[in-house]
Amino acid sequence: MAVYTDVSADELEAFIEGYDIGKLLSYKGIAEGVENSNFLLHTEAGYYILTLYEKRVAAADLPFFLCLMEHLASRGLTCPQPVHTRKGDTLGTLAGRPAAIVTFLEGMWLRRADARHCAAVGEALARLHLAGADFAMTRANALSVAGWRPLFESCRERADEVQHGMGATIGEELALLEHCWPRNLPQGVIHADLFPDNVFFLGDRLSGLIDFYFACTDTLAYDVAICLNAWCFEPDFSYNVTKGRALIQAYRKTRALSEAELDAMPLLARGAALRFLLTRLVDWLNVPSGALVKPKSPHEYFRKLRFHQRAKSVRDYGVEIGELAS
Amino acid sequence: MAVYTDVSADELEAFIEGYDIGKLLSYKGIAEGVENSNFLLHTEAGYYILTLYEKRVAAADLPFFLCLMEHLASRGLTCPQPVHTRKGDTLGTLAGRPAAIVTFLEGMWLRRADARHCAAVGEALARLHLAGADFAMTRANALSVAGWRPLFESCRERADEVQHGMGATIGEELALLEHCWPRNLPQGVIHADLFPDNVFFLGDRLSGLIDFYFACTDTLAYDVAICLNAWCFEPDFSYNVTKGRALIQAYRKTRALSEAELDAMPLLARGAALRFLLTRLVDWLNVPSGALVKPKSPHEYFRKLRFHQRAKSVRDYGVEIGELAS
Repeated sequence: MAVYTDVSADELEAFIEGYDIGKLLSYKGIAEGVENSNFLLHTEAGYYILTLYEKRVAAADLPFFLCLMEHLASRGLTCPQPVHTRKGDTLGTLAGRPAAIVTFLEGMWLRRADARHCAAVGEALARLHLAGADFAMTRANALSVAGWRPLFESCRERADEVQHGMGATIGEELALLEHCWPRNLPQGVIHADLFPDNVFFLGDRLSGLIDFYFACTDTLAYDVAICLNAWCFEPDFSYNVTKGRALIQAYRKTRALSEAELDAMPLLARGAALRFLLTRLVDWLNVPSGALVKPKSPHEYFRKLRFHQRAKSVRDYGVEIGELAS
Repeated sequence: MAVYTDVSADELEAFIEGYDIGKLLSYKGIAEGVENSNFLLHTEAGYYILTLYEKRVAAADLPFFLCLMEHLASRGLTCPQPVHTRKGDTLGTLAGRPAAIVTFLEGMWLRRADARHCAAVGEALARLHLAGADFAMTRANALSVAGWRPLFESCRERADEVQHGMGATIGEELALLEHCWPRNLPQGVIHADLFPDNVFFLGDRLSGLIDFYFACTDTLAYDVAICLNAWCFEPDFSYNVTKGRALIQAYRKTRALSEAELDAMPLLARGAALRFLLTRLVDWLNVPSGALVKPKSPHEYFRKLRFHQRAKSVRDYGVEIGELAS
């Protein structure tokens, strides 16, 4: 969490004149999102989120993200909506950075999710996959299997600084996944980062999804595997089969998972754990001194990877045998 | 800027049930305020600021701050208003910390103030001093002259790490100020931290003052001296007499400054510069590794102190001779 770029009221007022949202009444840097600088704006027309895209987000990808949010919303998914300038643009420049204003979404993210919440996430993820089916743009997933080796090479020599044996374990896992990665499963738009802080609830009702800045075109079931990692482990890193079962079964009620997708789940979950392990490891080993952001520990995903390595089938994730046929 | 303490939606919803402000709709950690954790709340009744008081604020002082905000608002000053619980309290406990909800104030703080803004600040400061005149509570200023030596002792051996000669200069300045500090000037409630980020503007109109968590009972003219330091220097640390003049003259139109107060201004300004130099120095030398907050450089106030040391009278701050008699 951090605001990387500060914006003066003068600059922001001039920027907002391009939009039909009235005069600026206040703005606050918000301590959410580690990739971009986010501000909550209050204008005469209401509340909005202003995002300045920092260097980790490629400017060329921004039209994909913004068009996707519009597309998904037009299909009934609740997510932030890019606001158009009077000229019709959704992307501008502020403080030397690409910038966009999106609508403000009510709701809170859950610090402690239970199985009902996991079910709501599974259903929302399936709805996202269906809503994205006719989205015309594509974006390769730079953080899928082909992207893992370069990440690993950048940190392999120092991985054991974090934990003895981590480097060797990652090397073996990576070689296995490069060989066995499921490549013929159904593809489409995936969120690729649907962690608890990107899912809003009002009471027990899921009220919206945010932060589409990792969204891409990839294996749909891989998105399920990311959610199993993000939602279904306890603080002690034990896997909660009740939550996993709730998430997968709710997903399947909205979008069927084929036998091939279900069979691939342990491998996909290993890949998802490795992907977050690698990016956390790189961040952990490369904290600039005086950094405003304390990176997340890589240990969590090392532990989760160990769980997935032992899983033999999707049954180990809470899906029971009889259900597979249904 | 930092959120120190995270709060779960469950905890916050339970906390808010004690107030008559409807259900919680959203909350965001805001990246403002270095002493406390601040959240912008949206409830069915509107927008509010929730503050969790971290360890740098003494819990025993909180009633002073909260009552002062209520008192000043009742005298027509625009500042955040503590919201009362159904039981009538303004202070509660959340996430193990003292916590209060205050009203949300519109406006933006200025990254680049001009002389008109400085005049508005001078007038607002004088109005604050008048409005505080009949406030019944008192709070000693822990960061006035008696508090500076302990701060200095905690960092004198390492001061030269920041700049060669800084330790000796501070030592001499401190000895002089302890000897000459003006002690018989009019006292009252002072804000003591009226920096640009604590003053909101809507357009060119000053719309409110925030952050009363350094407020205390002290020399009123010392508050003017703090503002001269905070508002009237350029980014290259040169003093801008036009801004200084605007600030002091606008103050005097609302609350007269006696000849003794004006005469003391260079000393008061030296003291103010030393106070911020010392706290910044201590923070600078004591950054914990992995800190979320990058402390402000002590250099700025070392340079400002040098300016004040050369000032011979209030005329050096932009107040002209003929005006002193008026």
